[in-house]
Amino acid sequence: MDFNIIRCARAILHVTDLEASRKFYVDALGFIETESDDGHIYLRGLEEHTHHSLVLKKADQPNVEVLGYKVASEKDLEALAVFFENEGHSTKWVEKGEQHAIGRTLRVHDNSGLPLEFFAEMEPVERLLQRYDLYTGSRMQRIDHFNCMVPDVEETYAFYRDKLGFACSEYTETEEGNVWAAWLHRKQNVHDVAFMNGKGPRLHHIGFWLPDQLSLIHTCDVLASMGYGENLERGPGRHGLSNAFFLYLRDPDGYRIELYSGDYLTSDPDFKPIKWDINDPMRQTFWGHAAPDSWFNEASKVVDMDTGKEKDLTAGKLKQHKPTFVI
Amino acid sequence: MDFNIIRCARAILHVTDLEASRKFYVDALGFIETESDDGHIYLRGLEEHTHHSLVLKKADQPNVEVLGYKVASEKDLEALAVFFENEGHSTKWVEKGEQHAIGRTLRVHDNSGLPLEFFAEMEPVERLLQRYDLYTGSRMQRIDHFNCMVPDVEETYAFYRDKLGFACSEYTETEEGNVWAAWLHRKQNVHDVAFMNGKGPRLHHIGFWLPDQLSLIHTCDVLASMGYGENLERGPGRHGLSNAFFLYLRDPDGYRIELYSGDYLTSDPDFKPIKWDINDPMRQTFWGHAAPDSWFNEASKVVDMDTGKEKDLTAGKLKQHKPTFVI
Amino acid sequence: MDFNIIRCARAILHVTDLEASRKFYVDALGFIETESDDGHIYLRGLEEHTHHSLVLKKADQPNVEVLGYKVASEKDLEALAVFFENEGHSTKWVEKGEQHAIGRTLRVHDNSGLPLEFFAEMEPVERLLQRYDLYTGSRMQRIDHFNCMVPDVEETYAFYRDKLGFACSEYTETEEGNVWAAWLHRKQNVHDVAFMNGKGPRLHHIGFWLPDQLSLIHTCDVLASMGYGENLERGPGRHGLSNAFFLYLRDPDGYRIELYSGDYLTSDPDFKPIKWDINDPMRQTFWGHAAPDSWFNEASKVVDMDTGKEKDLTAGKLKQHKPTFVI
Amino acid sequence: MDFNIIRCARAILHVTDLEASRKFYVDALGFIETESDDGHIYLRGLEEHTHHSLVLKKADQPNVEVLGYKVASEKDLEALAVFFENEGHSTKWVEKGEQHAIGRTLRVHDNSGLPLEFFAEMEPVERLLQRYDLYTGSRMQRIDHFNCMVPDVEETYAFYRDKLGFACSEYTETEEGNVWAAWLHRKQNVHDVAFMNGKGPRLHHIGFWLPDQLSLIHTCDVLASMGYGENLERGPGRHGLSNAFFLYLRDPDGYRIELYSGDYLTSDPDFKPIKWDINDPMRQTFWGHAAPDSWFNEASKVVDMDTGKEKDLTAGKLKQHKPTFVI
Repeated sequence: MDFNIIRCARAILHVTDLEASRKFYVDALGFIETESDDGHIYLRGLEEHTHHSLVLKKADQPNVEVLGYKVASEKDLEALAVFFENEGHSTKWVEKGEQHAIGRTLRVHDNSGLPLEFFAEMEPVERLLQRYDLYTGSRMQRIDHFNCMVPDVEETYAFYRDKLGFACSEYTETEEGNVWAAWLHRKQNVHDVAFMNGKGPRLHHIGFWLPDQLSLIHTCDVLASMGYGENLERGPGRHGLSNAFFLYLRDPDGYRIELYSGDYLTSDPDFKPIKWDINDPMRQTFWGHAAPDSWFNEASKVVDMDTGKEKDLTAGKLKQHKPTFVI
Repeated sequence: MDFNIIRCARAILHVTDLEASRKFYVDALGFIETESDDGHIYLRGLEEHTHHSLVLKKADQPNVEVLGYKVASEKDLEALAVFFENEGHSTKWVEKGEQHAIGRTLRVHDNSGLPLEFFAEMEPVERLLQRYDLYTGSRMQRIDHFNCMVPDVEETYAFYRDKLGFACSEYTETEEGNVWAAWLHRKQNVHDVAFMNGKGPRLHHIGFWLPDQLSLIHTCDVLASMGYGENLERGPGRHGLSNAFFLYLRDPDGYRIELYSGDYLTSDPDFKPIKWDINDPMRQTFWGHAAPDSWFNEASKVVDMDTGKEKDLTAGKLKQHKPTFVI
Repeated sequence: MDFNIIRCARAILHVTDLEASRKFYVDALGFIETESDDGHIYLRGLEEHTHHSLVLKKADQPNVEVLGYKVASEKDLEALAVFFENEGHSTKWVEKGEQHAIGRTLRVHDNSGLPLEFFAEMEPVERLLQRYDLYTGSRMQRIDHFNCMVPDVEETYAFYRDKLGFACSEYTETEEGNVWAAWLHRKQNVHDVAFMNGKGPRLHHIGFWLPDQLSLIHTCDVLASMGYGENLERGPGRHGLSNAFFLYLRDPDGYRIELYSGDYLTSDPDFKPIKWDINDPMRQTFWGHAAPDSWFNEASKVVDMDTGKEKDLTAGKLKQHKPTFVI
Repeated sequence: MDFNIIRCARAILHVTDLEASRKFYVDALGFIETESDDGHIYLRGLEEHTHHSLVLKKADQPNVEVLGYKVASEKDLEALAVFFENEGHSTKWVEKGEQHAIGRTLRVHDNSGLPLEFFAEMEPVERLLQRYDLYTGSRMQRIDHFNCMVPDVEETYAFYRDKLGFACSEYTETEEGNVWAAWLHRKQNVHDVAFMNGKGPRLHHIGFWLPDQLSLIHTCDVLASMGYGENLERGPGRHGLSNAFFLYLRDPDGYRIELYSGDYLTSDPDFKPIKWDINDPMRQTFWGHAAPDSWFNEASKVVDMDTGKEKDLTAGKLKQHKPTFVI
């Protein structure tokens, strides 16, 4: 392929109450609020050198507007547009200036219907990695990955791998030999995006990187002391898949946020993807804790970029195993 | 009172398979095996300067033989014997030499029927606190506390407080104003022993002190990698009560072991015991996770020192609230 | 003895610039400012249930006004007054109301000339141990100990042990068999006070307890990012003596503060004090790092309670070994 | 360029006593010994999926035989050979089978004279990342980087950047505007190799990745308890450059090993290299601790692949600032 996708880079989430969101993301989790206006809050982690990785946008109901990936250059954007058009996907350019602090973006749907956005340029800002005096809450570092529920994982996986150039680090296989879930990366850790079988297209969660395990534990303590105990949905625990230390939260609009720390380097082209058997009880969450039903059933709907309305959902093609070992 | 109980100091547990126990306690959890023979394994933590804090004794079925407390001197033993006799409890001396590595002990039942043992002297051994090359598994430090289910908490609490000189750090109260559970200490942290309402007398768990939170997390990782995933019963998490970081395990015979780290100093006589309301949902486990049913219902029976048989059980006097916030 | 000293409890330090002190202690280290007025800042740690453990008092020059110990009751204060008078020490009562938020105090000099204060009562305040949303900087927990330089350690040690009821946990011995330094406790960890040979009486440092090792490391990061790099005098590192993880800071007036975490339980009367040989190179700071000269030579002068002036200094009786292994 | 270097991948060090090395690397640091014979020990970290990242080779004196980089495929090896020949460097193929557990390698000298080796294939082995029961000592994860002293940093930097395709993450500049040191990466963290001004070509250290800060602190404790206190040369501390937490050790032959954890993601092509001014005292080691002289002056000589003898040294072109802030 003649384009180079760098990494998962930002998401735009529609939220119903900016103040409630600010309290959760900034006061509790310690995101840096780069900027805000009446309709938006722009958030980033302490390590990030560009304007934001999360946009909270005031709306009447919570929906995912778009999942954004950074590409290497403007030239890659052009090549991606050609590619998607050739594949029969409609494309849409959002010109520089139409969105705050970001260059021109290309918007498309992937083959599962998820709304994507590609961009090469975002306004640089001061990186706060060594401003330890500003570290609070979770000591939020950077965006790490998207996790999505899609009806046909094998088809989506093939599209990202064969057409977009993602590599697979780990996957889950059913007893019939189907891929039930897959973890795919462009940057050199476990994933930029994962897909799992289920009613979709929906966003299951966005993962953010934390510096260490104790930051996740402290997040639990901070959230509990602020009255957010019920927002702690799952964890902390160790993932079998990815080996990361994890914690799943629900934000005030119900979006699921994963705090994630400590997976591994995936630089080597000869790294053999790790297969997990969906029926092997030893392959569940590494310590054996079950995920709650909400974690399995609930996910966020996405906006159709053409109609501006919620995308319709299709049931998962494979059996709905309760994926306690899925991350 | 004219005796000085120092602290919770050792327990003797009957186990059915010494090799299985050794694998769990020594290989996985990192206890130091001070010594062993055909019928016993003597274990201690890295910080302990005396021979053992846990005796695993080969038997046909798992039962708690005795819960041991250290007292300041032989004179305190004498005074305790007089006290218990005056209270109408039968007493029994086990002379030095009859048990390995320990001086003369006084055996009695407390007013709930739990078999206790008091001693002033135990064989000193090398303290391994700074032998970091020997740290493995959980980095086990020392015994911390006993937690017992008893039918009448208020009565037992009063006995320990008024007659034996324990102080209360925290307690749980029912809506009717009864003490449902109480944490009592002689040494200066949250407890040497806790009592909670339930069918008893039974031992709910023994707590051991770890140096930090990551040692508990690493314990989960180690146990899972050794196939002990199902032995992880509850946690890791933060206790509301005691503020400690905790993890509950079940050993091969079903005994419950708590790994516990980071409570607080209780040196001050004017420290006001902290009251927790049994019905307040905000008082549950600090992060809001529920305890599994097994944690609530299962506990270990004890041996009657007079008959050598299992003690009969009496139902708890108060309503059986599922005590998710009890530690 | 017929009095019961509970623990090291507070210090009053004269500081020259309250704003500079507040920035260091509150903004950087994360002490809770209970209260303040034009002439004082009252600070406490997150675990403390009484009004303060450190008083910063505006003055023209930095001097230690007094080192305070909590006793069990008013009766113990009376008994202490009688004891000191019988020993030929002058005593002074500061009545309730003369000092803020504290009951009546007894002020005396110990036999090395250090100004001490005993009290039984301090105003209770909300304990913030579980207000994790307020944790910042060092996550300061509580006062732990005083460390003082005195001319005659053996004499001072004997006074605290034989007359005041302190127990020794560890000590350093010269090649001639003299005690060069000693760690003494009332509460059940390594020390409430330590004495080391040197020009005195002077306060070497005050130690505060932190919850874990990473809190000390984060303190370094925070201080460096706020421009306090030069205030990091020594550490972080592991003490041989006490086994605690330590960090020494210098505050804006030059007072030395130790952040300290993770020593051990000293409840047992049969615990044999640990002896360290002053000439054994293996007994230095556990990892072998040398202490800087400033750490060895510089300490804070104290105020004579009778004259209100700086106490004169006497040289240390023993040879001035550079005590790199002293904590 | 038409080749793709993946990452820093292995080093071969000549050591004088295999048993002494094993004790240090395996028993103390916790490296996994994949295999060994009379003349070699092959070591890897817990995360590594290929046979080794460090070869200790029995020899009469300690010298660095070669620094190895992994490339994407055999085709990249061919292209690299053509490139080096075109640049006028002699090349040497070591065929598969001549070295244990590795495919064909291309050996060359870089333009500073350092002996390099490129390979595409190494024998796969079981990855032990989730075998937590095998974690000991430092919990060694994987090789991270080489740091070398070279006489002309700017020339070497230009060669790696312009000819070999490395990107710069951070660099140090002299007051005259010269690059005094540079951190260069292929994989997506701070470096695969760094160069600093000095007598060279020499290897300053090899960096290995650890999972967290506490693993570095535990390493200090373990080394000290095993009598390796003098092998702790510098740290633990926080790097200004790279932001990593670090510890420098000296192995039994004097090789310097860095334990390193927690730098940052360098995936973005628009990340602007961070410049550090060599004379700015605030740019030193983040906490302000000075490096010892040994750290500055001592480094390991390398073997000339053509002669099999030690490479001659050339003095550094720039002034020999004591680079306390160099990592």
